[in-house]
Amino acid sequence: MNYSYIKVEHSGLIGTIRFDHYIKRNALSEPLIEEMEDALLEFGQQDIRVVVLRSDSKQQVWSSGHDVLELPKSERDPLPASDPVMRLMQVVRAFRAPVIAMVDGTVWGASTDLIMSCDMAIGDHDSTFAITPAKLGLPYTASGILHFMSRMPLHVVKEMFLTAEPIGADRAVQVGILNHLVAASELESKTYEIAKTIALRSPQANSAFKAQAQVLADSASLNPLVFEYLQSLRRDVFLGSDYREGISAFLEKRQPQFTQAKK
Amino acid sequence: MNYSYIKVEHSGLIGTIRFDHYIKRNALSEPLIEEMEDALLEFGQQDIRVVVLRSDSKQQVWSSGHDVLELPKSERDPLPASDPVMRLMQVVRAFRAPVIAMVDGTVWGASTDLIMSCDMAIGDHDSTFAITPAKLGLPYTASGILHFMSRMPLHVVKEMFLTAEPIGADRAVQVGILNHLVAASELESKTYEIAKTIALRSPQANSAFKAQAQVLADSASLNPLVFEYLQSLRRDVFLGSDYREGISAFLEKRQPQFTQAKK
Amino acid sequence: MNYSYIKVEHSGLIGTIRFDHYIKRNALSEPLIEEMEDALLEFGQQDIRVVVLRSDSKQQVWSSGHDVLELPKSERDPLPASDPVMRLMQVVRAFRAPVIAMVDGTVWGASTDLIMSCDMAIGDHDSTFAITPAKLGLPYTASGILHFMSRMPLHVVKEMFLTAEPIGADRAVQVGILNHLVAASELESKTYEIAKTIALRSPQANSAFKAQAQVLADSASLNPLVFEYLQSLRRDVFLGSDYREGISAFLEKRQPQFTQAKK
Amino acid sequence: MNYSYIKVEHSGLIGTIRFDHYIKRNALSEPLIEEMEDALLEFGQQDIRVVVLRSDSKQQVWSSGHDVLELPKSERDPLPASDPVMRLMQVVRAFRAPVIAMVDGTVWGASTDLIMSCDMAIGDHDSTFAITPAKLGLPYTASGILHFMSRMPLHVVKEMFLTAEPIGADRAVQVGILNHLVAASELESKTYEIAKTIALRSPQANSAFKAQAQVLADSASLNPLVFEYLQSLRRDVFLGSDYREGISAFLEKRQPQFTQAKK
Amino acid sequence: MNYSYIKVEHSGLIGTIRFDHYIKRNALSEPLIEEMEDALLEFGQQDIRVVVLRSDSKQQVWSSGHDVLELPKSERDPLPASDPVMRLMQVVRAFRAPVIAMVDGTVWGASTDLIMSCDMAIGDHDSTFAITPAKLGLPYTASGILHFMSRMPLHVVKEMFLTAEPIGADRAVQVGILNHLVAASELESKTYEIAKTIALRSPQANSAFKAQAQVLADSASLNPLVFEYLQSLRRDVFLGSDYREGISAFLEKRQPQFTQAKK
Amino acid sequence: MNYSYIKVEHSGLIGTIRFDHYIKRNALSEPLIEEMEDALLEFGQQDIRVVVLRSDSKQQVWSSGHDVLELPKSERDPLPASDPVMRLMQVVRAFRAPVIAMVDGTVWGASTDLIMSCDMAIGDHDSTFAITPAKLGLPYTASGILHFMSRMPLHVVKEMFLTAEPIGADRAVQVGILNHLVAASELESKTYEIAKTIALRSPQANSAFKAQAQVLADSASLNPLVFEYLQSLRRDVFLGSDYREGISAFLEKRQPQFTQAKK
Ligand code: NI
Ligand code: NI
Ligand code: NI
Repeated sequence: MNYSYIKVEHSGLIGTIRFDHYIKRNALSEPLIEEMEDALLEFGQQDIRVVVLRSDSKQQVWSSGHDVLELPKSERDPLPASDPVMRLMQVVRAFRAPVIAMVDGTVWGASTDLIMSCDMAIGDHDSTFAITPAKLGLPYTASGILHFMSRMPLHVVKEMFLTAEPIGADRAVQVGILNHLVAASELESKTYEIAKTIALRSPQANSAFKAQAQVLADSASLNPLVFEYLQSLRRDVFLGSDYREGISAFLEKRQPQFTQAKK
Repeated sequence: MNYSYIKVEHSGLIGTIRFDHYIKRNALSEPLIEEMEDALLEFGQQDIRVVVLRSDSKQQVWSSGHDVLELPKSERDPLPASDPVMRLMQVVRAFRAPVIAMVDGTVWGASTDLIMSCDMAIGDHDSTFAITPAKLGLPYTASGILHFMSRMPLHVVKEMFLTAEPIGADRAVQVGILNHLVAASELESKTYEIAKTIALRSPQANSAFKAQAQVLADSASLNPLVFEYLQSLRRDVFLGSDYREGISAFLEKRQPQFTQAKK
Repeated sequence: MNYSYIKVEHSGLIGTIRFDHYIKRNALSEPLIEEMEDALLEFGQQDIRVVVLRSDSKQQVWSSGHDVLELPKSERDPLPASDPVMRLMQVVRAFRAPVIAMVDGTVWGASTDLIMSCDMAIGDHDSTFAITPAKLGLPYTASGILHFMSRMPLHVVKEMFLTAEPIGADRAVQVGILNHLVAASELESKTYEIAKTIALRSPQANSAFKAQAQVLADSASLNPLVFEYLQSLRRDVFLGSDYREGISAFLEKRQPQFTQAKK
Repeated sequence: MNYSYIKVEHSGLIGTIRFDHYIKRNALSEPLIEEMEDALLEFGQQDIRVVVLRSDSKQQVWSSGHDVLELPKSERDPLPASDPVMRLMQVVRAFRAPVIAMVDGTVWGASTDLIMSCDMAIGDHDSTFAITPAKLGLPYTASGILHFMSRMPLHVVKEMFLTAEPIGADRAVQVGILNHLVAASELESKTYEIAKTIALRSPQANSAFKAQAQVLADSASLNPLVFEYLQSLRRDVFLGSDYREGISAFLEKRQPQFTQAKK
Repeated sequence: MNYSYIKVEHSGLIGTIRFDHYIKRNALSEPLIEEMEDALLEFGQQDIRVVVLRSDSKQQVWSSGHDVLELPKSERDPLPASDPVMRLMQVVRAFRAPVIAMVDGTVWGASTDLIMSCDMAIGDHDSTFAITPAKLGLPYTASGILHFMSRMPLHVVKEMFLTAEPIGADRAVQVGILNHLVAASELESKTYEIAKTIALRSPQANSAFKAQAQVLADSASLNPLVFEYLQSLRRDVFLGSDYREGISAFLEKRQPQFTQAKK
Repeated sequence: MNYSYIKVEHSGLIGTIRFDHYIKRNALSEPLIEEMEDALLEFGQQDIRVVVLRSDSKQQVWSSGHDVLELPKSERDPLPASDPVMRLMQVVRAFRAPVIAMVDGTVWGASTDLIMSCDMAIGDHDSTFAITPAKLGLPYTASGILHFMSRMPLHVVKEMFLTAEPIGADRAVQVGILNHLVAASELESKTYEIAKTIALRSPQANSAFKAQAQVLADSASLNPLVFEYLQSLRRDVFLGSDYREGISAFLEKRQPQFTQAKK
């Protein structure tokens, strides 16, 4: 298969996907996502025991998140379950073999959620992680928030969402985003050393384990009334002034001026 | 509004509540709680984007927890949902904007649970955190225990409850109680710097996020039979000898002599 | 009572169980487990406020996990709820008083899960923790995976299961396996100091707390369809080639050759 | 208080609300709903032990359901939690005393859901019950579907929703919609006889019971992923062609021409 | 074993327990319950495939429910999980073989809940069923309410609790309380015919089925906050005026005068 | 497509599947199931708004359930999620349009569960329904038991499973298995009249409704420990003597001799 936004390799029992669209800072645009889905589909038919997800070359930005141009300007839920980014999380989470993120730059927005949807993450000292819907006035999904809550203390999850500020590499390893923090020069060798270890283990047991852990991590129980209430809160936001302002300001490259949440 | 137990300020988009009842070590007494509820109600009607909760001045104790004089001596559930302290947790958790605890002294009992009900906590090196029902023979609530479990490894939660010993500031940041640990001289500036960042973000998105995270964090699912069993365990404790002894010993300022849990 | 695989002591309000079967590396064999159950039953009838679980003497291995000779060679679920090891976890978790693991060597497989089923763990610098079903091609239980998830960031849980590699003592304290890491020479004094503190606290309140925390930590909600799906994944593994190969390789002391998990 | 769409009476310990807007077939329009909310608020402050909800006079239609003119033509979720009809269900369900529906005509759409949100229903032989979103191409809410599922066999719930045809009085009592079916001439006396019995019972116990039953009936547990999937299905419907066609056809008083649900 | 309050028989594979304390109208007093527990324990060790629960002779009252003299006069939760009646439900529900109630008279209060905890019920035309906490001002348990909700339409459950009036035999079979309604002269033969059929079936499969159905029927999911709220509602009732008045009136054989539930 | 075990028709917006393998009493054998899956797949690509499932001609038996020859003789879980019969339930339940069972004969075992997995059922007076695992010593699945519990009072569900006796048509309509009971001569016209009504309704709304109702009906929440316990009970049965005896007796066409469930 031919890829334009990513590079795909298969060596031994290890598959590698490299983001290769730095002109858009490796944003999770719909075409890039479709290629990732194709690559994982292809890997699924091969004897791949583990996948490494990385940027093609070390740059300032590892991946810039959701392509804001693809978001609705207003009035529509910007993150329905059918959104390509939401779908990508599910594809990565449902992939039968583990996926390791190898991070050597800044990670933004939905790309940070993608890190949470990988099974492990290894980073160097330039890796940072920010989740930025509060900058856009965008109401995030409950399932996405839960990805963070299963990995970090709640106080830290709240700090990340409420401030929208990046977490640096040192703190990322301390709070549980990164499994390992290594020097840039050793990032690749450390990552593939772990990948090789995983490739020696039982792929059948690992596949069942991954499915079980995923189900358990997703299992927060809400009743319909509660969920419909949360959805109405989200709806107030995406129909409201902050979301319109947040998207406009982003596109106009200026600071947004947000207003008070009523009531 | 006039306050006697707290001080209340509103500057820019930031509200501040200062405990101001050091004669009782800023205990969470019913009148102090009522003032906090009033202050949050007032803030709710103003354009407040974030609240800082602090002590009026740096002292040895930041807040000493439940006012033990207000607890029933025995025979009654000391922590019904209608207890002012339980109600305060809910009010803080339900407040539409984030609440940051700025901690510069020791925190005891229910005040530590209050920290868990805030959205973030920043502390200096004198901050410590203890949860002390095991000293009183008091059966804590499941919802309160859950506040700790969403923020810390279970082994640490158990250590805190089972030993009732304080966790120091260094460990507090490591286990996820504190978001940041800074020098005393920088505590205020660091706290307000974070508050200012939050105030720039979309209050509508942050408000929906906070509600979602709260619901998810509270969502442990139990069936009625299980819950009624847990309540009967709690009932055996508050009707039992340890609770009577724990309260007496506290009021008589002596060490309690606890006895074996039957069964 | 007479014990052959463990040593049992009762001093003050503290009970101690020492693994004493180093010839089998303190493996969790059925006879050792039965003795542990007897010891806990006996403790349950005495005025014991806290239990220390330790190895009789500091050795390289603290406990080597499930006795692989007791596992079915294939075709049967190797970890039914009635398996002695599963039963032991429940007995430890249901024991009315806290159980502290004092760890001074390497911990393997189900013994690491046992650590997760204790209430606290204190270790020295030689303590390491590995969970190894991926080496055996063995499908672990959902309840067991949940023991890890309530204590550690999900990324770390996945690393432990997917790589089956040991976590060293320093990292163990950082991720929440160990409550405290101390020098070998101070391990015993630190452990018993904490045990003595717990023994001073209300056993009635601690007992109710432990039951509540246990129920909350076990409360991940799945519906029957989801669970039957997970069980069918596990079944594919224990009826499959990896499990047969994993057990054979272990018994023949060679590296297993695992094959691709079929889609 | 003055009411234009309903009549409100308080006699002894029994409150009565009569629909009085037959020109719109007692549709659940926003102004009628607001008056019902006011009436229940007023009742809440009086010593009312039970409420009867009825039509002011026996007519062909008891209540015609959601005022279709108030539904969005398309593109928006027609049943957010903040919709007046959804809010009315909650107000009735949360009202501290029981609400008995006294039904003597046909009941349509959301008014049938309102019957499910009352605590009991007594009808005469002219009472019929239909739930009609399938005629409008309108995606109903999960919480609303659950109201029916707690009262009727699932096969019957599905028949009602899938066919959108009315259930007659005889069948309504058999499947559990009606508590009692009586002759038209005895409907009032039977209803008030039951109301008087309830008024003799402990209002405190009945109030706690109603709250418990409500919570239990609403307690179907879904995780966020599942709910977001269901919401995306609903979204496909309200953004799709059937909803537009259903609303248009209704307003143009013609049969809708629906098209195939894609995949 | 000798029994004073019940008679116990074992014939073929069928065990029979007969209430034999008509002087107290077969009330579920603590000594009667203890004998029932002993009988079931005994049956559990014999090859019993099904149990019939009946009154020793046909009388007006089959069983009169909780012995009101054993209820606390006020101030205490009258239905903790450790209450003998609550315990009896659990013992019946946990008994490995099915229990069939054979009912030939009126059933009151907790005895109706006991019918819901049996696996089947066969009645004659004199059987009636009432659940009467609303007459006593007694707050029932959530688990008990759930027993009814799994068997009947919610509207009927509410009618039974809110009115505290008996349901006659014809309606009992229609709403699902009775499996079969037969003439008094055929009640015994019909009941034992069904018992004999069950005794022919696989006791191993039936035992696993019963456990599964029990767990599923009990599985309403609540989070701790919700349950603590429900418990606080119950507490307001048992600490309140209605409960005191209800118990007094019952003991004084007069009509209770209940007062308005505050707020 | 060519079918050997079923007949498939598509007329207007209605699809029909006819069992056509009376030589095996329309048993749910693997080849018949595969054809049904093919037919539903085909229907899924056509503009089918509703499916009727019927027997090709009125016979004594409508469908005889699981093909017992396909069950493992012993030692293996006879009903894993991957079993064709289990899969068929899921396919019917997940089919985007409603499926109506038109029943004119006796229905046995898994075919009765299939009726529960259809959306509606219409029958004539010869229709009967039995669920027979207790005759085989076969431990049924929790998800299957739940299919019955969402449609019938729990006492009736238990009677069906515990006695394994058929429920006749009159009772089937009363307890909620049948939506309508009509004379044999009118069965077809009544069924297709309802199908035509459904075909007029919004397929998009009906499809979303069906998915929601399915999810809600499947949503009983269990935690992993509870499920693993239930699975171990099931395992004791399929590894035990009753299952071996039940299957043998069935194949040898004799009465099984079951033994006491141990413990
Ligand atoms: Ni998008
Ligand atoms: Ni208090
Ligand atoms: Ni074993």
